[in-house]
Amino acid sequence: MEQITELSYALDTFYFLVSGVLVMWMAAGFAMLEAGMVRAKNTAEILTKNISLFAVACIMYMLYGYSIMYPGEAVSPWWPGIGSILGSTDNSAADVLASNGETYYSGLSDFFFQVVFVATAMSIVSGAVAERMKLWSFLLFAVVMTGFIYPMQGYWKWGGGGLDALGFLDFAGSGVVHLCGATAALAGVLLLGARKGKYRADGSINPIPGANMPLATLGTFILWMGWFGFNGGSELKVSDVAEANAVALVFVNTNMAAAGGVVAAMAVARMLFGKTDLTMALNGALAGLVAITAEPLTPAPLLATGIGAVGGVIVVFSILGLDRLKIDDPVGAISVHGVVGMWGLIAVILSNPDATLVAQLTGLGVIFAWTFVTSFIVWFVIKMVMGIRVSEEEEYEGVDLGECGMEAYPEFIGSQGSGK
Amino acid sequence: MEQITELSYALDTFYFLVSGVLVMWMAAGFAMLEAGMVRAKNTAEILTKNISLFAVACIMYMLYGYSIMYPGEAVSPWWPGIGSILGSTDNSAADVLASNGETYYSGLSDFFFQVVFVATAMSIVSGAVAERMKLWSFLLFAVVMTGFIYPMQGYWKWGGGGLDALGFLDFAGSGVVHLCGATAALAGVLLLGARKGKYRADGSINPIPGANMPLATLGTFILWMGWFGFNGGSELKVSDVAEANAVALVFVNTNMAAAGGVVAAMAVARMLFGKTDLTMALNGALAGLVAITAEPLTPAPLLATGIGAVGGVIVVFSILGLDRLKIDDPVGAISVHGVVGMWGLIAVILSNPDATLVAQLTGLGVIFAWTFVTSFIVWFVIKMVMGIRVSEEEEYEGVDLGECGMEAYPEFIGSQGSGK
Amino acid sequence: MEQITELSYALDTFYFLVSGVLVMWMAAGFAMLEAGMVRAKNTAEILTKNISLFAVACIMYMLYGYSIMYPGEAVSPWWPGIGSILGSTDNSAADVLASNGETYYSGLSDFFFQVVFVATAMSIVSGAVAERMKLWSFLLFAVVMTGFIYPMQGYWKWGGGGLDALGFLDFAGSGVVHLCGATAALAGVLLLGARKGKYRADGSINPIPGANMPLATLGTFILWMGWFGFNGGSELKVSDVAEANAVALVFVNTNMAAAGGVVAAMAVARMLFGKTDLTMALNGALAGLVAITAEPLTPAPLLATGIGAVGGVIVVFSILGLDRLKIDDPVGAISVHGVVGMWGLIAVILSNPDATLVAQLTGLGVIFAWTFVTSFIVWFVIKMVMGIRVSEEEEYEGVDLGECGMEAYPEFIGSQGSGK
Repeated sequence: MEQITELSYALDTFYFLVSGVLVMWMAAGFAMLEAGMVRAKNTAEILTKNISLFAVACIMYMLYGYSIMYPGEAVSPWWPGIGSILGSTDNSAADVLASNGETYYSGLSDFFFQVVFVATAMSIVSGAVAERMKLWSFLLFAVVMTGFIYPMQGYWKWGGGGLDALGFLDFAGSGVVHLCGATAALAGVLLLGARKGKYRADGSINPIPGANMPLATLGTFILWMGWFGFNGGSELKVSDVAEANAVALVFVNTNMAAAGGVVAAMAVARMLFGKTDLTMALNGALAGLVAITAEPLTPAPLLATGIGAVGGVIVVFSILGLDRLKIDDPVGAISVHGVVGMWGLIAVILSNPDATLVAQLTGLGVIFAWTFVTSFIVWFVIKMVMGIRVSEEEEYEGVDLGECGMEAYPEFIGSQGSGK
Repeated sequence: MEQITELSYALDTFYFLVSGVLVMWMAAGFAMLEAGMVRAKNTAEILTKNISLFAVACIMYMLYGYSIMYPGEAVSPWWPGIGSILGSTDNSAADVLASNGETYYSGLSDFFFQVVFVATAMSIVSGAVAERMKLWSFLLFAVVMTGFIYPMQGYWKWGGGGLDALGFLDFAGSGVVHLCGATAALAGVLLLGARKGKYRADGSINPIPGANMPLATLGTFILWMGWFGFNGGSELKVSDVAEANAVALVFVNTNMAAAGGVVAAMAVARMLFGKTDLTMALNGALAGLVAITAEPLTPAPLLATGIGAVGGVIVVFSILGLDRLKIDDPVGAISVHGVVGMWGLIAVILSNPDATLVAQLTGLGVIFAWTFVTSFIVWFVIKMVMGIRVSEEEEYEGVDLGECGMEAYPEFIGSQGSGK
Repeated sequence: MEQITELSYALDTFYFLVSGVLVMWMAAGFAMLEAGMVRAKNTAEILTKNISLFAVACIMYMLYGYSIMYPGEAVSPWWPGIGSILGSTDNSAADVLASNGETYYSGLSDFFFQVVFVATAMSIVSGAVAERMKLWSFLLFAVVMTGFIYPMQGYWKWGGGGLDALGFLDFAGSGVVHLCGATAALAGVLLLGARKGKYRADGSINPIPGANMPLATLGTFILWMGWFGFNGGSELKVSDVAEANAVALVFVNTNMAAAGGVVAAMAVARMLFGKTDLTMALNGALAGLVAITAEPLTPAPLLATGIGAVGGVIVVFSILGLDRLKIDDPVGAISVHGVVGMWGLIAVILSNPDATLVAQLTGLGVIFAWTFVTSFIVWFVIKMVMGIRVSEEEEYEGVDLGECGMEAYPEFIGSQGSGK
């Protein structure tokens, strides 16, 4: 009997770790997606941002974020928050056996799973501010975002705070992760302004195509794959029949929503543009995934496909709409994660009888308001103190040379080229 | 005791889901492989095809395919086929416990695993028809292929149909998946014709090199990785000593066959061409994997290496041979998946005492005949109704501009370049 | 009770196989990293080396290596070493049940895990000798390295040999895998010499930037991901509370060390160069991972972050230092895996009370001396017999054309370009 409990604990822990690896892999997905969607001259810098934001997120969440978001887990007497992640304080076998099934996975595996989530939220930001933001200003924001802004609202929902008590539902984070990341991005973009040449004086919009579509597609496939860990792991338990079925359903719905998003976005793009735009297909996949993230467990697969498809439609119009508002988002991150994240929160009421529109809108509003206000303040302070935008000359030459002192594709493009 | 059964169910379900994620990842592998093997001007379109065929495959298989292939699993009273994947009808704990071990994984996890297989079969097609087929004609074919042609022959073997009763053996689908996909591709290629400029008037062959070898190599590695899920998951069970050993052997044999394929194909290419052609090494790896897929469980690892090596030899000669026949297959998909798939089916008799040459050849013939005839008809109808080939001008300019209205590498290649 | 033992065996086997898949995936990581760090004209060849060395490593380790490294596992009467991997001789359920927990995973799953480790060691070599070594000379070395040199020193530590008896500690192979690979690379580089034009007559160093930074970044992310299997799987067991906690801690520490390495290397690079060099950030991540590999289980996560950060600092200075010594290593492999591997071995004493500096230095010295002397002899013999360096003309034109008869990016770069 004790052996069964231990084995069950081992399986749930292993499931958590595998899910965490898949979510960690999403960092590569964002890096590839964003590197593919910017111009060649800004590619090395966006790659640098992506790998360094992941590192910063892990360190800040270890030092502060985890203890803010899950205060119940933070038991260190000597440092706030890293108690449970010190390794010396994971659950003993005796505690597990005495817990009557309450303690069913390693606390460290939970930290691992959570820490890769934070990085996801932060990754969303880097795409939206691409091609014009200073690298170290961005990293400074990442410190505050991953150590404080994200964990605080995460606590309200997942750490047992007020939004949870209110009945706000967000299974794997359409709001807590995606809307939060997109909102922080929006605040940054508003203070940062559009890329030079994006919006012409005559009011027309200058499309700036990404330099490397295979990379962007690879990034999308990586994110699709990683999302099975993101949503699938958020069930938190797999070790009995009901839980295993639940995880399987989450996998199926996650996949179907992405499929629905692809088809819908392609069809809309085809109708609007007369051509089958690849970037819209990619954004459609991601929109489907974001849309189902708030509730991948209660819909039937057919409904999940529909929820994803609506996300795919929304994302196309949102991208076009933000461009009209001159909100310049090179990779469409605000639309994919923010606007569709809102749709995902609302769509919970379609299948989960415990959800109410009021609670969902309250949660949505609180996450948006908190993240927008705090992010805006932080971006603003950074702007005042050290600036957030590179010089006009550096933007023209490419931030790769200015920030990183190198080129991403030194042989492919002469200094005269590079999409200027 | 009941807890053990539940835990066992959970492990088998989790193993199925992990395997399914690996197979889903193969979609990215095909996308990268094909994007690397075509010319730059046709890259965005092949990427669009790859992500959209995956979406179409998932939707069609949910709506129709799964119920055709596994009628025993389809129990919905209101829609043919999606009963078991509605989520409301997964196995209850009581049923699992009462089943005496017969019901040992979530029905939804099975659907997830199966649906990514369909996409694999369809991915094979896109490579062979690359650089000249209309996007939406291709997607229309995908609808029929994934919703009907593939599931029908899949039923004959894996759903309990006639080929299974006959003693035809195909563990993970050298025939059901790879030969089927390659045959559908062959039918399409015959109706489509070769790329302009591939076969010169004087009878000589104009090699058209792929634009991006790192992508093609990445795709091959992704497929190699995903194949552990493809073959490893096809054991369907891992939860006791004998099954765990079986899965481990399948992993080892899958890996060794790929290794054998690489070395053999490289050696042959080196002997034939005097140079060590990378694309042949890649095709050798894939050929080894396809060859072992029909029977990765009964050979010893040394024999598995040999079976893969023979696959690696075959694929080189097959690619050269098809070119002589003026069957133009830009990525070698028909050779890798079709010709070597046949070898895989036959190689079963080398190690599995239950296999007979007659049964294997019968299965091979039935799958080929069914898929070729039905695919040919469908391609033909599509050709008559809306056409399957882009205009000569569009082919010259690149299907990226014509079909997707964009370029895959807008900064790397001027409009004058692009491998024309 | 028996069912629990069987289920436990299945979980540990499955954990081993999943870990092995992640390590196998590192082969793609090395391929992408190296392809990104060399010039375009040498890319196809480095890709060919990477996929073929993996194949060679698997075959040689099956035939010879595994039986040398783990003689206790090699029981075949008819062929040295492949007994335990013949499939017919995996553990029977009866043996498992009678073993009192001693036999707790499939022998074949162990072979699978070990074989992908060998390939990792060999992958390290290909980067350091890139852009100037003959392909088939390299493969010949790979045969000896993976069939004899690596397994021999692996036996001394992990197979129960003298280094293990001495108290030398190396959890997952900072020494056995990384230092060994880097030392073999060093011996090769010394006999091979620097690339033409790297070190100028006036003593200055000509930086030769890599052609494709997104690929290099992707490769780093792949390696980071794969490392969870590399270190996480090296605990060898997950199936009870203590083991599950241990694996979770290994995951967390592996991740934190990489994060520490990124931040430290970026900061140092920024201070030294005034710019935030992306390649240093990537090398920092890898250095952090190598540093923690010798002991990812006993440090607290904060210490693991620090161990990785020191690795990140070391790697920057090591790369600069080796360049001063005119040891030309295009991807920094000797620094990342060798110099930082040494740091990893020494860092064990910071947290593991069983470690002694004497034992660690002894192990370090033995691995280095054995690998350097044997590798030097083998490289030397190959150099005498068939040569190891391509002709000056071939180096100038690019080894892609000379060795593989093809180009990696035929459309992106005219024959006049290519970083000459």
